[in-house]
Amino acid sequence: MDGVVDELSQPASYKDLCHEHHEGAPMPSAEALRGIVELLRSIIFPGFFGKSTINKDTLKYHIGVNVEHLFALLVEQIQAGLAFADYCNVAAYAAYNQQTIYTELHRMATDRAEKFIAKLPEIRRVLATDVVAAFNGDPAAKTYGEIISCYPIIKELTIYRMAHELWLLDVPLIPRMLTEMAHSETGIDIHPGATIGEYFTIDHGTGVVIGETCIIGKNVKLYQGVTLGAKSFPLDANGNPIKGIPRHPILEDDVIVYSNASILGRITIGKGAVIGGNIWVTQDVPAGANITQKK
Amino acid sequence: MDGVVDELSQPASYKDLCHEHHEGAPMPSAEALRGIVELLRSIIFPGFFGKSTINKDTLKYHIGVNVEHLFALLVEQIQAGLAFADYCNVAAYAAYNQQTIYTELHRMATDRAEKFIAKLPEIRRVLATDVVAAFNGDPAAKTYGEIISCYPIIKELTIYRMAHELWLLDVPLIPRMLTEMAHSETGIDIHPGATIGEYFTIDHGTGVVIGETCIIGKNVKLYQGVTLGAKSFPLDANGNPIKGIPRHPILEDDVIVYSNASILGRITIGKGAVIGGNIWVTQDVPAGANITQKK
Amino acid sequence: MDGVVDELSQPASYKDLCHEHHEGAPMPSAEALRGIVELLRSIIFPGFFGKSTINKDTLKYHIGVNVEHLFALLVEQIQAGLAFADYCNVAAYAAYNQQTIYTELHRMATDRAEKFIAKLPEIRRVLATDVVAAFNGDPAAKTYGEIISCYPIIKELTIYRMAHELWLLDVPLIPRMLTEMAHSETGIDIHPGATIGEYFTIDHGTGVVIGETCIIGKNVKLYQGVTLGAKSFPLDANGNPIKGIPRHPILEDDVIVYSNASILGRITIGKGAVIGGNIWVTQDVPAGANITQKK
Amino acid sequence: MDGVVDELSQPASYKDLCHEHHEGAPMPSAEALRGIVELLRSIIFPGFFGKSTINKDTLKYHIGVNVEHLFALLVEQIQAGLAFADYCNVAAYAAYNQQTIYTELHRMATDRAEKFIAKLPEIRRVLATDVVAAFNGDPAAKTYGEIISCYPIIKELTIYRMAHELWLLDVPLIPRMLTEMAHSETGIDIHPGATIGEYFTIDHGTGVVIGETCIIGKNVKLYQGVTLGAKSFPLDANGNPIKGIPRHPILEDDVIVYSNASILGRITIGKGAVIGGNIWVTQDVPAGANITQKK
Amino acid sequence: MDGVVDELSQPASYKDLCHEHHEGAPMPSAEALRGIVELLRSIIFPGFFGKSTINKDTLKYHIGVNVEHLFALLVEQIQAGLAFADYCNVAAYAAYNQQTIYTELHRMATDRAEKFIAKLPEIRRVLATDVVAAFNGDPAAKTYGEIISCYPIIKELTIYRMAHELWLLDVPLIPRMLTEMAHSETGIDIHPGATIGEYFTIDHGTGVVIGETCIIGKNVKLYQGVTLGAKSFPLDANGNPIKGIPRHPILEDDVIVYSNASILGRITIGKGAVIGGNIWVTQDVPAGANITQKK
Amino acid sequence: MDGVVDELSQPASYKDLCHEHHEGAPMPSAEALRGIVELLRSIIFPGFFGKSTINKDTLKYHIGVNVEHLFALLVEQIQAGLAFADYCNVAAYAAYNQQTIYTELHRMATDRAEKFIAKLPEIRRVLATDVVAAFNGDPAAKTYGEIISCYPIIKELTIYRMAHELWLLDVPLIPRMLTEMAHSETGIDIHPGATIGEYFTIDHGTGVVIGETCIIGKNVKLYQGVTLGAKSFPLDANGNPIKGIPRHPILEDDVIVYSNASILGRITIGKGAVIGGNIWVTQDVPAGANITQKK
Repeated sequence: MDGVVDELSQPASYKDLCHEHHEGAPMPSAEALRGIVELLRSIIFPGFFGKSTINKDTLKYHIGVNVEHLFALLVEQIQAGLAFADYCNVAAYAAYNQQTIYTELHRMATDRAEKFIAKLPEIRRVLATDVVAAFNGDPAAKTYGEIISCYPIIKELTIYRMAHELWLLDVPLIPRMLTEMAHSETGIDIHPGATIGEYFTIDHGTGVVIGETCIIGKNVKLYQGVTLGAKSFPLDANGNPIKGIPRHPILEDDVIVYSNASILGRITIGKGAVIGGNIWVTQDVPAGANITQKK
Repeated sequence: MDGVVDELSQPASYKDLCHEHHEGAPMPSAEALRGIVELLRSIIFPGFFGKSTINKDTLKYHIGVNVEHLFALLVEQIQAGLAFADYCNVAAYAAYNQQTIYTELHRMATDRAEKFIAKLPEIRRVLATDVVAAFNGDPAAKTYGEIISCYPIIKELTIYRMAHELWLLDVPLIPRMLTEMAHSETGIDIHPGATIGEYFTIDHGTGVVIGETCIIGKNVKLYQGVTLGAKSFPLDANGNPIKGIPRHPILEDDVIVYSNASILGRITIGKGAVIGGNIWVTQDVPAGANITQKK
Repeated sequence: MDGVVDELSQPASYKDLCHEHHEGAPMPSAEALRGIVELLRSIIFPGFFGKSTINKDTLKYHIGVNVEHLFALLVEQIQAGLAFADYCNVAAYAAYNQQTIYTELHRMATDRAEKFIAKLPEIRRVLATDVVAAFNGDPAAKTYGEIISCYPIIKELTIYRMAHELWLLDVPLIPRMLTEMAHSETGIDIHPGATIGEYFTIDHGTGVVIGETCIIGKNVKLYQGVTLGAKSFPLDANGNPIKGIPRHPILEDDVIVYSNASILGRITIGKGAVIGGNIWVTQDVPAGANITQKK
Repeated sequence: MDGVVDELSQPASYKDLCHEHHEGAPMPSAEALRGIVELLRSIIFPGFFGKSTINKDTLKYHIGVNVEHLFALLVEQIQAGLAFADYCNVAAYAAYNQQTIYTELHRMATDRAEKFIAKLPEIRRVLATDVVAAFNGDPAAKTYGEIISCYPIIKELTIYRMAHELWLLDVPLIPRMLTEMAHSETGIDIHPGATIGEYFTIDHGTGVVIGETCIIGKNVKLYQGVTLGAKSFPLDANGNPIKGIPRHPILEDDVIVYSNASILGRITIGKGAVIGGNIWVTQDVPAGANITQKK
Repeated sequence: MDGVVDELSQPASYKDLCHEHHEGAPMPSAEALRGIVELLRSIIFPGFFGKSTINKDTLKYHIGVNVEHLFALLVEQIQAGLAFADYCNVAAYAAYNQQTIYTELHRMATDRAEKFIAKLPEIRRVLATDVVAAFNGDPAAKTYGEIISCYPIIKELTIYRMAHELWLLDVPLIPRMLTEMAHSETGIDIHPGATIGEYFTIDHGTGVVIGETCIIGKNVKLYQGVTLGAKSFPLDANGNPIKGIPRHPILEDDVIVYSNASILGRITIGKGAVIGGNIWVTQDVPAGANITQKK
Repeated sequence: MDGVVDELSQPASYKDLCHEHHEGAPMPSAEALRGIVELLRSIIFPGFFGKSTINKDTLKYHIGVNVEHLFALLVEQIQAGLAFADYCNVAAYAAYNQQTIYTELHRMATDRAEKFIAKLPEIRRVLATDVVAAFNGDPAAKTYGEIISCYPIIKELTIYRMAHELWLLDVPLIPRMLTEMAHSETGIDIHPGATIGEYFTIDHGTGVVIGETCIIGKNVKLYQGVTLGAKSFPLDANGNPIKGIPRHPILEDDVIVYSNASILGRITIGKGAVIGGNIWVTQDVPAGANITQKK
């Protein structure tokens, strides 16, 4: 066994696979992120999540405590993400000591967490429209409460809408960790960089992929197995993919996409268009069009 | 931060998103439901799940304790579900106090739990046929024991067959919570309202959707990515979907559906028909037919 | 309730569904296997997983402790798997006592665990190529660290490559339990018997199925929803599927398969071929070919 | 083993040792009581206990949530205590069903819990005097904060003063369970029925016993090993001890009792008296007296 | 830090302080012993401990499961204790391999555990007398149930009476670990080697010491702070104490010893004698005598 | 309830009872301190504590990991203690921001933790002498291993000797929290400020008190119930006790003190003196003297 340990401890063997931590800068924690998601759910949907029972007289106490706790966890995790992505450029700061870097990272993280907290009322407002969309889209649903407590699309969107705000605030790594947690739980893979309007829903959800540069309007509905992906991506002079180019579709308001359809590339699906199941779309679709599989 | 807390505590902002609890009536608990599933698995498949080792001399003690514990958890959770769905109609009971409502909910829950417990032997009998079907359908399987301990379809069906019995007993919310737990774990989304016969199996499973009003005969086999869905649904005068209409397919005995096929609407796939992969079926298919993708 | 307990305790009712344990031979434990996966991740990718922070001076202590702990857990779980599959043939050993069987199982398990530990450096080397493949294949990825900490394909391959080595060492049950754990987490279902070369990646991943007898070359890329499956399987004289026959495709080096394509049967996809999305392939494809859906 | 199980299951063998539960009436829970103590500590001494950090802006949210949680736990545990002690006299209620009894017990428990919550400000006020007494009595103490976070006497008195209020509210069993928890933690055994004035302290604490009918004035200080006990107790006609007779000492204000002294019987130690260590007192002691061990 | 690690890893520095484990022979586990105590309490006092509610119809299932679980834990822990004390004399077994030693230890442990299980009904019978003694001895006690659920003496005696049986069965280390757990919880230190008759009680308990070779008759009552100890012990030729010589007192039936009295050496306190508080007894006391502190 | 919350939230009501945290400066954590104690035990006594089995080949890995982990926890907890005691004098630092204070506290804590780690080999050396003393002092002990794994005095001294080193390093609060944890577990109350030589033991332990300014030589033995306390303490002009004055006894080498004796005040018990049980000593005792209770 000693030989194996020696071999695995050779720097050459773990180059690129090892993350050396700066002092006081642990990796972002999946467990803490799960705590953050739980708190967010408790705040957005009072009485549905969290261990406490709720009545209107004491609701404010609970929201106060949960928002404070969420803020503290966010500062900690955002700071870990900033350290991971080396937002302070440790090499450039060589003249300074670890604590100076820590101080700067902490200031950056606090600033971003404060801005996120200020977005909470708007996040709740939009999620309320998503609940309506899910309810209207499923004849099997009996109450809003059933949607909120059971439906994977609401679990997914609660996390996605949080992750997207953090993405806009230039928080590294955390948004991707959050959406991969949601992906694992629901089978729906929405990149935090995607832009999605109000009253959005996905029926059943499993197997849906929505890429980084997608732009989705209001009142759009997808079914299971839909891909909004890239067709191909240009390589740079070294043969590496060029990062950050718009390469995923734009869906305008009121679009419906049926199960297992694939819409690929920076194309536009016009307002109110309907894309049938199991088909492969790589060209613009005009507003109001109805595209189905050939037989 | 105080401003955000105030805003989030405004009743207008959480209308429809807040669940106010009646006294003594917490939300159904995902953790308790996981405990219920663990107990069910221990009872149906002795020795495969649960922490204890099993021998035939002491098996009855274990089943006795597990059935008693399952009953107690079911009463508690069914009661929480009934309270959530307001089965006692709190407004109508206005003349009575909370405890009267509690008493009535408790009686309803106990009655349903007793009826469920009486179904356990039949649930075990049918799951035994599902194990046989999974084994016969997969050349990679070596023993029944491997099927029971590893295969997602058995995890899914154990939960679905429980949830379906609770659905038939008019237990609200809990059946949907259970099948969404299974959906998250296996990627297979079976609505608890669907009716599914003996010797059922799904190979690989991920991405399968089986809708609320499906009726599936005996000895049916599906592959990954299959949808048994609705084609569309009628709206009522207010533009809302009409709930509860039969809108999903009927699959008669001995049907096979290959991967990623979509069968949509209240159509009938006749006895012994074979539906090929990646195709879209919206019309009745006669018994014995073999439908494949056009090339 | 007593009647139900009696009925559930009748041997006839649990025949084939009950696993009676030999003394000192519990079922393999899902919890222990999760611990094994955590340790493997800590060893392969130091500093990304596990609770400790890492610096180069103390890294060897951590790897030493983790390898020792991994070895102990593996011996225990492999032994449980061997007992489950009755590798000692309890009937044949009838002349011996339980402890003799235990001793022999323990020797077998220790031998397999030692051989697995010796494979760790090679497993790390191959996973490093998979990280490169995932990074090169996704313009949305910013660093190797993001790939290692977030991407489902790396979670999946870490488990698959471990499970495959255990499969080659003739460890029963455990490899399947491991890959089903990964399947549940990522929606990617790779059978531990499949053979997969270096620089392998799957984009998004959900809904991919790779069968037991697949052989995949180097530098292959798949997208979500791809099936590498069997077309059909021959039955023996009793109507049961014949186990172990090669029945899944061979993908040579540099093949790309787009989303939701199904490649079925023991066919060969030649070097550098590209298979388009949503199509169904049941015939050999020559090297360099480009197959797409007909419109 | 079966024989032993049969024997242990004979009602004759567990008569008087078995507690049969009424439906919906579990035993009071030591774990829940520990939760109650944690909440009380968080409320009385904000910022010293509990996981949250505290600042003055958000303190009210925390106290609100903690008081609500404490109330809910108290109702549940007091109800369990009332059921245990059969405060509804199940036999007498024979005409009624279980739920009627449950309803009545719940009402009784809610009433007592409300009265206890109203006492919280007074409990805090008195504990503040105990902190001062402990600080003044120990030259080794540097700050009030050290007293609050470390000293066993404050852990003990926090529980005792709560238990005593519950005792006065005629809550059965729970006060004794609470003081025995404190006894186990600190080695100080104060009966919840004892009456103890402000500014009370015990130095070191271990081995102190304060009996049920003790009455202790203000500003009293004890040392380790002191007993305030009963000398003997009268038996009734059946030879059983008569319950509830005053049989423990009265200590007036400003008394000091040094280590390992025993004061026994319903005697009075007058204001300001000092009792030396290791002595045995069974007679009244006048105010201001100084009693020491003979040499 | 490396220097410290090197120094602490020198065999010379940890000689006598290090316990090297034989393969498959971990240390006895304090956590497992706590589990054993919980099971014992559940079996002896049904309905008072353990999470389940109890009714007479299902009691036998619970006792069956608990006895089986207790047996399994005992085998495991006794085996660990035997390995710790080297009951197989690893040196003498040098000709054999580890597994042979393991097999023999397992046989020894199983035999002792079976004998202990057979003692359970007698342990319950004697503890029932201790409950009566505690109740009769304390006017503050209202019911047997209060004694069983709160009183430290019953917690102590449940563990002591178990530990004493294991001591008689020549189980090493475990009895001492058990009584030290009880000592820590209650402040009462009874050596497992002591012999104690029926109807035994200690009022308040804290600070009581009962030595290894004490013999205590029936119906004896002690108060807090009592020592039944050794006066001195002879040394052997090397100046080491000679182990195992009777050196603690004998208390005959019906003796009462008041608080903080010390009775030292192999003396006999005759039937019905009463020893007053705070005194020091090193000579035999005749039956019926009443010894008190001189004033 | 709202009224109570308001009242409890009035600053006047929690003055002196509330600890307001500086940002990034939580209270020292009892749970973290328990982790520190566990790590210390694993390092000092390899193989007796902690979950891993130990063999000589891998011991160094374990010690390396444990020492690193101990160091990290110590830095965190010492920093919390320094913040609690306001070692940076927040008022004086008013010109600086929170992070500057944090940086300075972190530097102070790191320095102290490093110095403590360097003391580990000496702590082990002295504890090895205490194990010998406990073994020689108890004829009931069979092996050193039994002493290390069961005896309260070793649990106590492991914590005391650590706490005393931290006390010498001017770490606030933590040493007292540690010794109170030990006090609660063992009933032995040793102040971390006391000085205690090698080969120290206490038989049985419960109820022993050793004050802050005690000085104890080598090879001293105490029995249960012994107090080494202060007789009285001078007050300052305000009537408050003067802190820090030597006021507890000095015990020279080879002293023995029997059970329940109290030695009070700054007196000296000369080399080799023996103090009998249950007596009260407030004067110097010459070397070699033998003091017993008068009869």
